[in-house]
Amino acid sequence: MSAAPTTGVSDPANLPLHHSHARAAARVTRVDRWLAAEVQRRIADGPVRLELWDGEVAAGAPPRAAGDLVVADRGVLIGLAVHPDLYFGEAYAAGRLGVRGTLTDVVDALSQSAAAQPSWIERLLGALARANDISAARRNVHHHYDLGNEFYALWLDREMVYTCAYFAHQDMSLDRAQRAKLDLVCRKLQLRPGETVVEAGCGWGALALFMAREYGVRVRAFNLSREQLQWARARARREGLDSRVEFIEDDYRNVTGSCDAFVSIGMLEHVGRRSYQALAQVLRRTVQRGSGRGLLHFIGRDVPRPLNPWVRRRIFPGAYTPTLAEVADSVTAPAGMSIVDVENLRLHYARTLAHWSRRVLAAGDRIRSAHGDEFFRAWELYLAGSEAAFRTGWMQLFQVVFAPREVAPPFMTRDVLYRHGSPR
Amino acid sequence: MSAAPTTGVSDPANLPLHHSHARAAARVTRVDRWLAAEVQRRIADGPVRLELWDGEVAAGAPPRAAGDLVVADRGVLIGLAVHPDLYFGEAYAAGRLGVRGTLTDVVDALSQSAAAQPSWIERLLGALARANDISAARRNVHHHYDLGNEFYALWLDREMVYTCAYFAHQDMSLDRAQRAKLDLVCRKLQLRPGETVVEAGCGWGALALFMAREYGVRVRAFNLSREQLQWARARARREGLDSRVEFIEDDYRNVTGSCDAFVSIGMLEHVGRRSYQALAQVLRRTVQRGSGRGLLHFIGRDVPRPLNPWVRRRIFPGAYTPTLAEVADSVTAPAGMSIVDVENLRLHYARTLAHWSRRVLAAGDRIRSAHGDEFFRAWELYLAGSEAAFRTGWMQLFQVVFAPREVAPPFMTRDVLYRHGSPR
Repeated sequence: MSAAPTTGVSDPANLPLHHSHARAAARVTRVDRWLAAEVQRRIADGPVRLELWDGEVAAGAPPRAAGDLVVADRGVLIGLAVHPDLYFGEAYAAGRLGVRGTLTDVVDALSQSAAAQPSWIERLLGALARANDISAARRNVHHHYDLGNEFYALWLDREMVYTCAYFAHQDMSLDRAQRAKLDLVCRKLQLRPGETVVEAGCGWGALALFMAREYGVRVRAFNLSREQLQWARARARREGLDSRVEFIEDDYRNVTGSCDAFVSIGMLEHVGRRSYQALAQVLRRTVQRGSGRGLLHFIGRDVPRPLNPWVRRRIFPGAYTPTLAEVADSVTAPAGMSIVDVENLRLHYARTLAHWSRRVLAAGDRIRSAHGDEFFRAWELYLAGSEAAFRTGWMQLFQVVFAPREVAPPFMTRDVLYRHGSPR
Repeated sequence: MSAAPTTGVSDPANLPLHHSHARAAARVTRVDRWLAAEVQRRIADGPVRLELWDGEVAAGAPPRAAGDLVVADRGVLIGLAVHPDLYFGEAYAAGRLGVRGTLTDVVDALSQSAAAQPSWIERLLGALARANDISAARRNVHHHYDLGNEFYALWLDREMVYTCAYFAHQDMSLDRAQRAKLDLVCRKLQLRPGETVVEAGCGWGALALFMAREYGVRVRAFNLSREQLQWARARARREGLDSRVEFIEDDYRNVTGSCDAFVSIGMLEHVGRRSYQALAQVLRRTVQRGSGRGLLHFIGRDVPRPLNPWVRRRIFPGAYTPTLAEVADSVTAPAGMSIVDVENLRLHYARTLAHWSRRVLAAGDRIRSAHGDEFFRAWELYLAGSEAAFRTGWMQLFQVVFAPREVAPPFMTRDVLYRHGSPR
């Protein structure tokens, strides 16, 4: 692999080694070799080779590899051996851990290995998955770099949807797949003209506007981000939908009145477990008892996992990706709602993230010049790590349809969701 | 309603009043009237009238009613006022509580009322639902009456399927709806010719034979009931499927080897919470890691509820209807499985039960002459009560598709489940 191009990542020889103990590329010692072999052993059957700063390949490295991890200094080597969950992301973003080949190939190869050989790799990928939790990272990145709408407009789809798309066909473009997701949500809710919808956490307003335009409903959409709301309101006015969609700068917990349908896409991960009771109360008082229904779309897990110390330190502490059971027990059941339907779209999210990765890469020059190389590498890693997490089943993407216990579900048979062609 | 026919239940005037304190229909006293008004008040807005043994209607009874509850003696009246959960079913089966109108109308009317006015009605219906828990009652009835295949053949569908059907169209017959359910299960599992399937709890073998015949798979089907297995094996030989379907008289916990697909329809309610760990172990060692998947179809609830004392006393103590969260936390997650898809078919079960009710009623003479009137009334009530429980959302029917965490789900988009017409 040594002649392979390094896509989107600098060659380690050219990296800015701005941490003190990495300044001089020390001679490789016996201890370094032993550590390298140890890390390589833990990579197990993942076809990834570990290479040291002098070009030496770790003992036990596979003859053919999907890519190489290139360690720029002893600090990173020790870090990888002892605390991969702490050091992988840091070292990569800082440019002290390089990748020869493509980052996604390497992360994917490590993921494959994790299935057979948990422990070390699992800690590493687990940390990646957690560190790169979409919503948490979003806040983190947002917080640290004060990103604007312009950054996301560089690589999101036309509708500016920053959640999992739905690839109704294998070859759908991201633009079409995001629209298909919006439509799938509307179909699952069986929206009818004239009905009222509350949306909690509306991002740039794509779903709210879609529901009003395509399904003729009236929407009240809640969001705390003034910048996103300004964008959404401007678009609503442009499209003549401002009389039917009200964008409200407020917490979802302050939702008043009632609605026929409640929908929340990619917000549950934000609010944290402590807020589930409040969300349940919102559902209980908002969703009409006689005819209501709702949909929650969120990043979830199979098994509850607390955030690790690194993530707790670095990332917004309220974020949490729940299990389906936690949502059932702490949100829908206390709200008096029955779960009607659940779909796990994790591979759709992996594909969405692959699209985002390609688009971030394509916009690399503009992103680097605006935000710097470390920022770019952090985003690159977080998208690749998240893709691997969804692809390997480390993370799930659940769409949960619910209705008040005594109310008939919005559909008796699911074929009606797919009857008139695929979602638009 | 006084002139309405009493369908399927004897007029209280003709009931066998075989309990000592009910022998003489005592004069209605002021205390009786007060108690009757009290019970009527608790029925609340349910359009059901309480009538006493002398024809007197309770104070506060609605002018128009879906049906009348006719109390045959003071003991039942006191029982209804104090412990509806204990006495409703007992008194009805014993013929000391009559219904004018149809039983299902009355139970339905009480159910509607329960939504608005929980407490008393909820206790009553809850007890009904629990007492009439399909699987528990089945064992109970089986235990008490030693029923054979012949009894079920009187009123089940042609395939002898004693679980929730799938009404792909509004007007499907029960026979077609049961076949549609079998096919829906196969579609969700995406069975391919030559694959191996383990079925835990196979009843009379309908699904096992269907999978082998229509999808070309090899099935090992487990059951503890020798009588059902004899029936199933005879049918397999008749249809020339005995080389592809092995019916095994053993506990599902003794499943050995591996399989491409694991399926269990209506067994989880039987095994009780204490066995979930064992079931998780079976799934972990049986479902192939590389390509496997499975489906659990079970009666569930929104909120965990312990069985009440009456049910614990009367009914097989191992039975338990779990929440979706309990199955996720205690079965699929410990087995290393991700939940791929969940469908709640509760209204399909209500409809299935309505079919069964009509067929039991139609076979009433034969059932009565073989098993007696009290038996017939108990079955009538248990089917009507279960129908109400599913219709009102007291009980749920979940189909859960799962796959080993690292394995791609059996389908990327659900439209493939419905593409080639409705399930057969």
